Amino acid sequence: MGSSFGRLFRVTTFGESHGKGLGCIIEGCPPNIPLDLKKIQAELDRRRPGQSKISTPRKEKDQAIFLSGIFEGRTLGTPISILFENKDVDSSSYRPFSDRYRPSHADYVYEQKYQHRDWRGGGRASARETVARVAAGAVAKQVLEQRSGIETLAWVKQIGNISIEIDSTTVQKEEIEANIIRCPDSQTAQKMQKLIEDVRKEKDTLGGIISCVCRNVPAGLGEPVFDKLEAELGKAMLSIPAAKGFSIGSGFQGVSMRGSEHNDIFETMDGVVRTRTNFSGGIQGGISNGMPIEFSVAFKPVATIFKTQDTIDKHENAVSISPKGRHDPCVLPRAVPIVEAMANMVLLDFLLLQQQNIV
Amino acid sequence: MGSSFGRLFRVTTFGESHGKGLGCIIEGCPPNIPLDLKKIQAELDRRRPGQSKISTPRKEKDQAIFLSGIFEGRTLGTPISILFENKDVDSSSYRPFSDRYRPSHADYVYEQKYQHRDWRGGGRASARETVARVAAGAVAKQVLEQRSGIETLAWVKQIGNISIEIDSTTVQKEEIEANIIRCPDSQTAQKMQKLIEDVRKEKDTLGGIISCVCRNVPAGLGEPVFDKLEAELGKAMLSIPAAKGFSIGSGFQGVSMRGSEHNDIFETMDGVVRTRTNFSGGIQGGISNGMPIEFSVAFKPVATIFKTQDTIDKHENAVSISPKGRHDPCVLPRAVPIVEAMANMVLLDFLLLQQQNIV
Amino acid sequence: MGSSFGRLFRVTTFGESHGKGLGCIIEGCPPNIPLDLKKIQAELDRRRPGQSKISTPRKEKDQAIFLSGIFEGRTLGTPISILFENKDVDSSSYRPFSDRYRPSHADYVYEQKYQHRDWRGGGRASARETVARVAAGAVAKQVLEQRSGIETLAWVKQIGNISIEIDSTTVQKEEIEANIIRCPDSQTAQKMQKLIEDVRKEKDTLGGIISCVCRNVPAGLGEPVFDKLEAELGKAMLSIPAAKGFSIGSGFQGVSMRGSEHNDIFETMDGVVRTRTNFSGGIQGGISNGMPIEFSVAFKPVATIFKTQDTIDKHENAVSISPKGRHDPCVLPRAVPIVEAMANMVLLDFLLLQQQNIV
Amino acid sequence: MGSSFGRLFRVTTFGESHGKGLGCIIEGCPPNIPLDLKKIQAELDRRRPGQSKISTPRKEKDQAIFLSGIFEGRTLGTPISILFENKDVDSSSYRPFSDRYRPSHADYVYEQKYQHRDWRGGGRASARETVARVAAGAVAKQVLEQRSGIETLAWVKQIGNISIEIDSTTVQKEEIEANIIRCPDSQTAQKMQKLIEDVRKEKDTLGGIISCVCRNVPAGLGEPVFDKLEAELGKAMLSIPAAKGFSIGSGFQGVSMRGSEHNDIFETMDGVVRTRTNFSGGIQGGISNGMPIEFSVAFKPVATIFKTQDTIDKHENAVSISPKGRHDPCVLPRAVPIVEAMANMVLLDFLLLQQQNIV
Repeated sequence: MGSSFGRLFRVTTFGESHGKGLGCIIEGCPPNIPLDLKKIQAELDRRRPGQSKISTPRKEKDQAIFLSGIFEGRTLGTPISILFENKDVDSSSYRPFSDRYRPSHADYVYEQKYQHRDWRGGGRASARETVARVAAGAVAKQVLEQRSGIETLAWVKQIGNISIEIDSTTVQKEEIEANIIRCPDSQTAQKMQKLIEDVRKEKDTLGGIISCVCRNVPAGLGEPVFDKLEAELGKAMLSIPAAKGFSIGSGFQGVSMRGSEHNDIFETMDGVVRTRTNFSGGIQGGISNGMPIEFSVAFKPVATIFKTQDTIDKHENAVSISPKGRHDPCVLPRAVPIVEAMANMVLLDFLLLQQQNIV
Repeated sequence: MGSSFGRLFRVTTFGESHGKGLGCIIEGCPPNIPLDLKKIQAELDRRRPGQSKISTPRKEKDQAIFLSGIFEGRTLGTPISILFENKDVDSSSYRPFSDRYRPSHADYVYEQKYQHRDWRGGGRASARETVARVAAGAVAKQVLEQRSGIETLAWVKQIGNISIEIDSTTVQKEEIEANIIRCPDSQTAQKMQKLIEDVRKEKDTLGGIISCVCRNVPAGLGEPVFDKLEAELGKAMLSIPAAKGFSIGSGFQGVSMRGSEHNDIFETMDGVVRTRTNFSGGIQGGISNGMPIEFSVAFKPVATIFKTQDTIDKHENAVSISPKGRHDPCVLPRAVPIVEAMANMVLLDFLLLQQQNIV
Repeated sequence: MGSSFGRLFRVTTFGESHGKGLGCIIEGCPPNIPLDLKKIQAELDRRRPGQSKISTPRKEKDQAIFLSGIFEGRTLGTPISILFENKDVDSSSYRPFSDRYRPSHADYVYEQKYQHRDWRGGGRASARETVARVAAGAVAKQVLEQRSGIETLAWVKQIGNISIEIDSTTVQKEEIEANIIRCPDSQTAQKMQKLIEDVRKEKDTLGGIISCVCRNVPAGLGEPVFDKLEAELGKAMLSIPAAKGFSIGSGFQGVSMRGSEHNDIFETMDGVVRTRTNFSGGIQGGISNGMPIEFSVAFKPVATIFKTQDTIDKHENAVSISPKGRHDPCVLPRAVPIVEAMANMVLLDFLLLQQQNIV
Repeated sequence: MGSSFGRLFRVTTFGESHGKGLGCIIEGCPPNIPLDLKKIQAELDRRRPGQSKISTPRKEKDQAIFLSGIFEGRTLGTPISILFENKDVDSSSYRPFSDRYRPSHADYVYEQKYQHRDWRGGGRASARETVARVAAGAVAKQVLEQRSGIETLAWVKQIGNISIEIDSTTVQKEEIEANIIRCPDSQTAQKMQKLIEDVRKEKDTLGGIISCVCRNVPAGLGEPVFDKLEAELGKAMLSIPAAKGFSIGSGFQGVSMRGSEHNDIFETMDGVVRTRTNFSGGIQGGISNGMPIEFSVAFKPVATIFKTQDTIDKHENAVSISPKGRHDPCVLPRAVPIVEAMANMVLLDFLLLQQQNIV
């Protein structure tokens, strides 16, 4: 269990990193909606390894094959199945890990949970699974664009100890995509790029923070008391590989404020209800209030380093490993479209759920 | 929708703050398990308002009435329904908010979402709903105690700007319960208590951080790729009123570490597999690895302050409000059992799900 | 698991026959809908034992207590919880069955499944559980009446070997309720009543068939390929105690027809699409086609007879039992509102699900 | 929605009849179970059109491609994805139905529900979708064989007005597979075959009844009160294209019996609990009792006849249609493996759910 996400817009992914293929089924996509398949591929290209010189040299094509649910360019309301074939996969560099557990990887826990494990390329635990998420999120994005004005933008806010504050109310997609780091401040982006290159030489890796804003979200999305909008967003983000933290609005910073500082005062401006501040991050009581939804996701440094490390093998003997091959010292820029994809899935699901209240 | 949590151990809560009653149905509790109802009541008393001088003077009895699912002291495997009757409720102090939206409360969004709202005591959005969660979590706790060695402990780590680091591997329940703050360091607890009393005089409120550890969790719990253990824990915690952030293991701190520092090296000690460090917080690839699960939850300051605030009314006119009556300047100590309850529900649900892998 | 029904309009029931109470939580009822609580009670009275001389003399009041989800007479969109308290219950006549398994009752299987059993009044397996279904169905009925023109009518078509064909397109509620049998043909009703009285004297019991029509169902309800309208209706009906068969449209009779006879020809009449015949029972491909939905449910004879029967006890010894006390030789008339309730729940759930297609 | 079935063993199918491909994702298959892929293909061949002279001459290869979830011949516990590619599809004979609604087909209702329809080969409503069900059921069958002794056998009991009673306790797979009708009585099978050939000449079609027995089902499977074993079996069967009725045990015949005749008396034989009769069909109170589970499914005559029929077009004008091309006058023999597949899915799902009761 656990490979499905969402309730009405429901995505189920499948596939091991080096198996025959990966992909997903999307259930519950509204019918009769024109889908631009090129735009979906464009989102996939943003996630693709090897897209820039800071990324892994591995060249995955990640060409989406649409198997069902679309006819004459429009959705049918039936399940949309998307397949990514794995071709020319070379699993040989993973052979040493068939019986040795890489530190901070999922090798050990998969073995414990399932008593059987596909060690090739990390198997099911590989971040390659997120290719299916990005495809599904790109479908959600087009539905949102056509049926609402919702716009989701994510960017790199921190890599290692280099961080920047961005005004989430004004940041534009073009600024984010202007550099390969996907940090909308070009000077900071350059520093981050330099850091990544340095760390690559050290055969080491970096973590960071991605921030995200969702604009034009209508008031009323979110299903209290358990399926609050921030709770589902949190789950969505924490399900991304390497995510270790989630904050909405003021997050961990807000805890040292007083209530009188933190409360967001309602007012009207040009006939529209808004709040003077947005420490709530666009959500109160688990429901969107019409203000921008603002959240951040913390990612740990990539577990695959190219230094020799101690570990144990299947028989619990002390051994060491020295990974060879491709090296991706920082995945934050490629994780930006994954964050957006998950947010778009969450928002569309809640938009559909809200339909029941207006029957 | 949204009032149910869990898949096999599934809890559905109901009730408005000042309606006839609140409660829950627990589906999927394993059968034939002795339940000590006094222990459940003891957990409820830890959440109860008015339990100490720092809390609201409101005296809710919160006496659980067990309607079904238990016979001769043991669970039947059928739904367990628990009811809390509301008696002697006085809603008059909420009357002004029947058409005015309290800042950073859910009044406005409920009105937008449902076009109809119970303004008495905050209605469904009231934190009073968590009484049902604590009851359900206390049932889960007893099942976990009897069918596994899992132990969950939460404590107050920060209030306002007063914070302390606790060694989560050794902290004991007795230390936490030794003071009314539920901070296991007595000196820090006194400072926190002083801060709460000062802020009360200012008619203001405080936020803070609760940390939690789950010990003796067997390896193998968690259902990738979406229902990862940290993702479900994150959702559970972010569904608690006023929660604004969640971190697992190294969380937001870990993002500036290098991979070589952050990776948790596997080793064996006395024949048991463990990791030298635990930056992963007991979870890798979404699955427990046998190490203690460690997480923290950020809570914003309480929205109900006793100062006059600007806001708007139902007709979008600018108005002001001045709440009167009871005042709870910091709910962190009472939120400790809620955090534990949600964690225990998550763990039991995954323990039951893991059964399918050993059919 | 298994005590919940529906996806968007989701009902969870709880309670053992002789426990403290029974009831349900309804999640997903649309908000802001006026509910007439007296009409709900009226439906409950149709199900109530002791309502007529042919029924059990047991006088259950079945007074619904509405705990949540309704405010100022209108639904809140939050969970509606309904409680039925058990008062003055006398379980003594069930004591002999605490360790003996009544034939064709659920005593044995509950013991096998859960290793623990509430033998009082049949525990969770008692048909008393259906009181909660009728309450939930009565809520669904009012929503359907206000938001669509859907009308559901069920009646007794057969008791023992006395059967009658009714024109489902014209039958009226008044005809059904004109006699205590709920058979719209008064002469047949009298014969059925006579049969019931005779069988009561023989200390034996009867089964029968209930037929049901749902009119004014818009085309488009039902979710292929698994959650077809007839599949969910079938599940709903087969979940009623003692149900052993379900047929939609031509059902088991249609199997010996030729395709050329059975096909329902489309035509328009007064600008409305219809079919010349309705062997499909209003459903094609799992989706309503706008014609009346017609189905029947077979009920086995009541298992509680007042003759001495052989059986085994908990230790698998051969024993005999001789039930004493109340006797309800035929429950068909009281099952009519249960069939309607389940149908209304199914239809409302699909009506809400269909909203996602018109986002 | 509606393309998923099951809770722990959960199958989601996708695909239109003439799209790029059809298939399924199986979630929740227990890990580390050897799968014989040839046996799965053998089940698919039993469903395949063109397998015998009475079937359609269309030659679908229905070669299963296993994309994920299996490694070194054993299940991984991760989603198993199975793909069937559509090759050399000729949709031209369906062109006339792109704007005309075939009687008793799903053309009209899909148009109403989704406002957009793939008319090629019936699109999503085509019985071709069941290829994915048979594959998933064949996986379930192997798990059941290895982890329990459960055996499911279905056979053709009636075609048109030719019917036969088979002793379900002794019927063997070899008898069923001995002829192309899958009726275990060879003389009756010959009569049925003759009838099919006659009806084919008349350009007409036939319906019938399939019966099924599940043996060695342990007591305890089924989840009352809504997800009773007979309710889920009923839903599963009624979700098969053309199914119009379902009966369990005595079914519609049992309604005219007295309780004293119908009750199944418990006894022990050779130390095993059984019932003298099995009118209950192996289920009481929604839970298996250890006796064989016996049920029947009614199928209407095939809607695709080769006679000219009246109907309407998209603009609601009266028109007529005259289908040409392949003709399958009776699909009952090919539906036998579909019935078995659905039954095996239901049983495995309940077997996994029952694990939670023995945690």
